[in-house]
Amino acid sequence: MVPPVRRSPSRDDVSERSLHGGDLSVLRRLNSAATLRELRDGGESTLSGLARRVGLSRPTTEGVLGDLIGRGLVAEVAPRPGSGLGRPARRYRFRAEAGHALGVEIDAHHVRLLVTDLSGEAVGGHRASLDTHARPDARISAVRAAVKACLAEAGIDRRSLRAVAAGTPGVVGPDGTVTRCAAVPGWEGVALGRELGRSFACPVLVENDANLAALAERWRGAARAADDVVCVHAGLHTGAGALIGGRLHRGRWGAAGEIGMLPELGLRDTTVVLISGAGPGPGAAGAELAGLASAGPALEDAARVLAAAGRRDPDALRAVDRLAARMSRGVAAMALALDPEMIVVGGPLVGAGAPLVESLRRHVLPLCLSPVRIEASRLGDEAIGLGAVRLALDRIDEDLFRVDRAPAATDPPAATEPAGR
Amino acid sequence: MVPPVRRSPSRDDVSERSLHGGDLSVLRRLNSAATLRELRDGGESTLSGLARRVGLSRPTTEGVLGDLIGRGLVAEVAPRPGSGLGRPARRYRFRAEAGHALGVEIDAHHVRLLVTDLSGEAVGGHRASLDTHARPDARISAVRAAVKACLAEAGIDRRSLRAVAAGTPGVVGPDGTVTRCAAVPGWEGVALGRELGRSFACPVLVENDANLAALAERWRGAARAADDVVCVHAGLHTGAGALIGGRLHRGRWGAAGEIGMLPELGLRDTTVVLISGAGPGPGAAGAELAGLASAGPALEDAARVLAAAGRRDPDALRAVDRLAARMSRGVAAMALALDPEMIVVGGPLVGAGAPLVESLRRHVLPLCLSPVRIEASRLGDEAIGLGAVRLALDRIDEDLFRVDRAPAATDPPAATEPAGR
Repeated sequence: MVPPVRRSPSRDDVSERSLHGGDLSVLRRLNSAATLRELRDGGESTLSGLARRVGLSRPTTEGVLGDLIGRGLVAEVAPRPGSGLGRPARRYRFRAEAGHALGVEIDAHHVRLLVTDLSGEAVGGHRASLDTHARPDARISAVRAAVKACLAEAGIDRRSLRAVAAGTPGVVGPDGTVTRCAAVPGWEGVALGRELGRSFACPVLVENDANLAALAERWRGAARAADDVVCVHAGLHTGAGALIGGRLHRGRWGAAGEIGMLPELGLRDTTVVLISGAGPGPGAAGAELAGLASAGPALEDAARVLAAAGRRDPDALRAVDRLAARMSRGVAAMALALDPEMIVVGGPLVGAGAPLVESLRRHVLPLCLSPVRIEASRLGDEAIGLGAVRLALDRIDEDLFRVDRAPAATDPPAATEPAGR
Repeated sequence: MVPPVRRSPSRDDVSERSLHGGDLSVLRRLNSAATLRELRDGGESTLSGLARRVGLSRPTTEGVLGDLIGRGLVAEVAPRPGSGLGRPARRYRFRAEAGHALGVEIDAHHVRLLVTDLSGEAVGGHRASLDTHARPDARISAVRAAVKACLAEAGIDRRSLRAVAAGTPGVVGPDGTVTRCAAVPGWEGVALGRELGRSFACPVLVENDANLAALAERWRGAARAADDVVCVHAGLHTGAGALIGGRLHRGRWGAAGEIGMLPELGLRDTTVVLISGAGPGPGAAGAELAGLASAGPALEDAARVLAAAGRRDPDALRAVDRLAARMSRGVAAMALALDPEMIVVGGPLVGAGAPLVESLRRHVLPLCLSPVRIEASRLGDEAIGLGAVRLALDRIDEDLFRVDRAPAATDPPAATEPAGR
């Protein structure tokens, strides 16, 4: 009468199911992926050093390297001068320049772009202002122009892009459509993934901006060692993204982290609260606030208050503390729902420095059950672009390292390269 | 200057890293695990049928079956009468009776136990009342006595247990200690995993009750087809558990889902609200409420209100609706934080049937961004014990199907069994 056991998916399942047949071509792909990864992450190597590091025989490693060179992913480099007799051993390296990833941040006021090679090393970037009230098609045209300028400045062929990821405020559905968006006028309902996809031959991904900030914090920010992380992106409104088990948690409809929808949790109109609470702060904003200030009057005023708080102006500190007290319910709700090991607070309202995060610690921790760490982001306004690049690189890695089928057809044709460049 | 790329963990990583060496003993374990799984999930089979289903050669399958029979996990069964000439083919089956899983639910008022075989088929169960104000050592002694009675009634040798899991209200730390618990007097700080571990030679796991309810709903309840699920366990207080990607999300300190800590979200003292809102309901509770009613005066009164609401008594329906309106903030907060595909509402306050869930749908959905399904649990007061068994079975599966090392030392010695029993 009792139905049969339903198995929970497990990692073992995957390997077992894809491999139990002892399929030799799968083994070959495993060997190839392991060798490529070792060269990418462990640095260049001789044939025998690589064989030892990967745990394969010399002949197998030689065959694998031949394949990888043929796919343009590995190159021979000039041998180091030998210390003894005979020819020095040949050396091999990962060709990070075999492809590129493009990250795009689109919000109401700006488009920011970042291009990296396959190692995640930045090779270009570009920024442009957007008209807040531009219609969606004009906004997308401006993004296309910015992409063109970015690639031209960096001297990168568009065909070299292996994946593109774009970040936007709002809820992004699984198909890349912006299903909800209060922050960008007219943006709701735009099929952003499809629209941008027309400009590229490679996969194009679209993701919520706070989610991308979370990826960036884990990659190169405050959350490098953490698997379960909530990232709070404090801006005109305040959104949140979460990493669970080291992976982005998007939710069924891409709407995870939108806890700010409950008004009693204090995450809506955060900037307005800051301004109305404190009145205009004194003097001009600091240089680090230039980006924030250019984003519109509300953020400009908020920037003044934050700058004053950074200078320990008592009125401004009180205003920031009032904002933190209000936001604390929403931040605590995310912490109680997910019990993360770390909360990283970023976004325009944190750009100015410590006061907001110090106040948040004071207000949020008493509401929590666990001693969660609350840290300020140090990625500034690069977080979302960086997260977009990480998402694109993850997509590229899926193709480079997958072992359950042959290499992707998007691999470029065999490249030849003189050794020792 | 840019640090090297940090790889996100991926499933491919695991298979690739554990297997790239082409380790033959790993292949053998993969073959063994795949064969065992096929027999367990696909039913008994002849040698050649099994070889075909798993994709191995006959000789390999024969060798694997020999190993599995030696480990007591597979048995030969009587051949079916042949339709043609010659001897009918031998048949093999998974020995579900090769071990057992025990699930234990402990709360302020009861201990409930469920024992299954390795297929998750129930083979025993037991219930006992607990003194609400018993000290922790007396409570644990009563649990031990209940385990003893349960095993004796089912005729199961304690040594046959391969894993035990216990559920309790409160926050359970990674080491099995109850770190927070308002519902069971004196329970906070009890090292429940260690205490119960003394009674068993197998692994003993401890988990929050709402988390176990979530596992149960996915295994045999309303959430069978869902990967991202929030389970709301409505009782004296209301807790929540979440499955993300089909796996239980416990959080860094085991406190995920404790969103009820924020009083403005309306999940605390839910029973009290129901009673004070409605006044004592009319007449005696229905038979289905007996378990609820025996749990204490507060739940007893709540049971009366719920029974009356089930009979469509207008006052009681209004009281239930007021409770749903209050709880809706907390339920919506979980939905907004995680964007699950489904919310399952269970626990004593749902035992009576539809009214609470109907009201919750009306109040929660307008607060959400996504068309999340809200369903009533149909597992009644078995949910937590069932979830505990699922957790124990998952632990057993880890040993049975893991491929990255030799079979666990806990495997029983080779068992012999006459064919065709």
